[in-house]
Amino acid sequence: MKYSSRIIEDAVNALSQLPSVGKKSALRLVLHLVKEGNQVEDIVNSLNNLKDNLKNCKECFNLSDHDICAICANVNRNKKTICVVESIRDVMAIEDTAHYDGLYHVLGGVISPLEGIDADQLRIEELINRIKTNGVEEIIMGISPTIEGDTTIFYLSKRLKETPIKISMLSRGVAFGGDLEYTDELTLGRSILARVPYSHSLAE
Amino acid sequence: MKYSSRIIEDAVNALSQLPSVGKKSALRLVLHLVKEGNQVEDIVNSLNNLKDNLKNCKECFNLSDHDICAICANVNRNKKTICVVESIRDVMAIEDTAHYDGLYHVLGGVISPLEGIDADQLRIEELINRIKTNGVEEIIMGISPTIEGDTTIFYLSKRLKETPIKISMLSRGVAFGGDLEYTDELTLGRSILARVPYSHSLAE
Repeated sequence: MKYSSRIIEDAVNALSQLPSVGKKSALRLVLHLVKEGNQVEDIVNSLNNLKDNLKNCKECFNLSDHDICAICANVNRNKKTICVVESIRDVMAIEDTAHYDGLYHVLGGVISPLEGIDADQLRIEELINRIKTNGVEEIIMGISPTIEGDTTIFYLSKRLKETPIKISMLSRGVAFGGDLEYTDELTLGRSILARVPYSHSLAE
Repeated sequence: MKYSSRIIEDAVNALSQLPSVGKKSALRLVLHLVKEGNQVEDIVNSLNNLKDNLKNCKECFNLSDHDICAICANVNRNKKTICVVESIRDVMAIEDTAHYDGLYHVLGGVISPLEGIDADQLRIEELINRIKTNGVEEIIMGISPTIEGDTTIFYLSKRLKETPIKISMLSRGVAFGGDLEYTDELTLGRSILARVPYSHSLAE
């Protein structure tokens, strides 16, 4: 693609560094911004803010505007339970359910030998320290049910074995509203093996 | 979606103003930029540059870093032919073919009563003035073969009727490399009516 302008070319190159933005989409975005000049200011300010003012919560490593995030700072939340998650996106997903009132701990990933991520690179020591110094009673493993996720859960459970803390994990099985016919074999098979006694509360 | 941080929320809102970027994609971009902080600077600088330094070429209204764009300033280009196009994207598309060495004139759209765009809002007077003052011999209508495009071509040809300038338009018909079976009926039908004598140069 030939650009008539070096400025446009630079902007296209900068934007096409973003995930799933190719040169063509970047050009579309750039030409949109050329038209809508006032949006540029909005975006520039918010990105500068992102770079300069965003912090990791010192407690749970969630992204935050302050040293301590809104969840950790909330006195109404149950400080005895910590849900360990991979990323801030998982915090958002769980918060959206409105079914959890405890705290979080953002690991920053999962153990993945294939991608060269081992336990040292995750915030596991920080979790251990947090548990030691506060009155935490339960750790929920809010980690994806993948091979890497399960490896991480296994590693964490081993590390926490000596502590008297209760360790729990998300229930696994067929998805609510899902169609049995289209559920993958592994999930369906395991949900039979891990069947639970019928209870009215499940259907609520 | 609950955001743990106002800064993230602002950035998501700013980015989701972009075309075909929803809140979810914007969040993905924002979290990517949180990780890759150095890309933020790149993007911010290039967008600021876009807003502050990008100009319209005074001759052809192509976007340009200077008052006169690289194409108009190029002494090797044929100044006797002007290709009239809708937008800078069409300039790029034609430049990419490497089959045109004349100049351009960017109208800034096509006449579209449905979208409330009439001839006054396009750079048609500027085109007429350009033709009067320079030794232009041919105008190529490099405009999309749509109803609005054809309306614009018709209007322009009427406006240019009194001048001795040759007016030509892009050839229309089945696309090179396209499958006849999948060519739309209108195009295929017209390509039969507008058939041309066989020539070896067509197959080149």
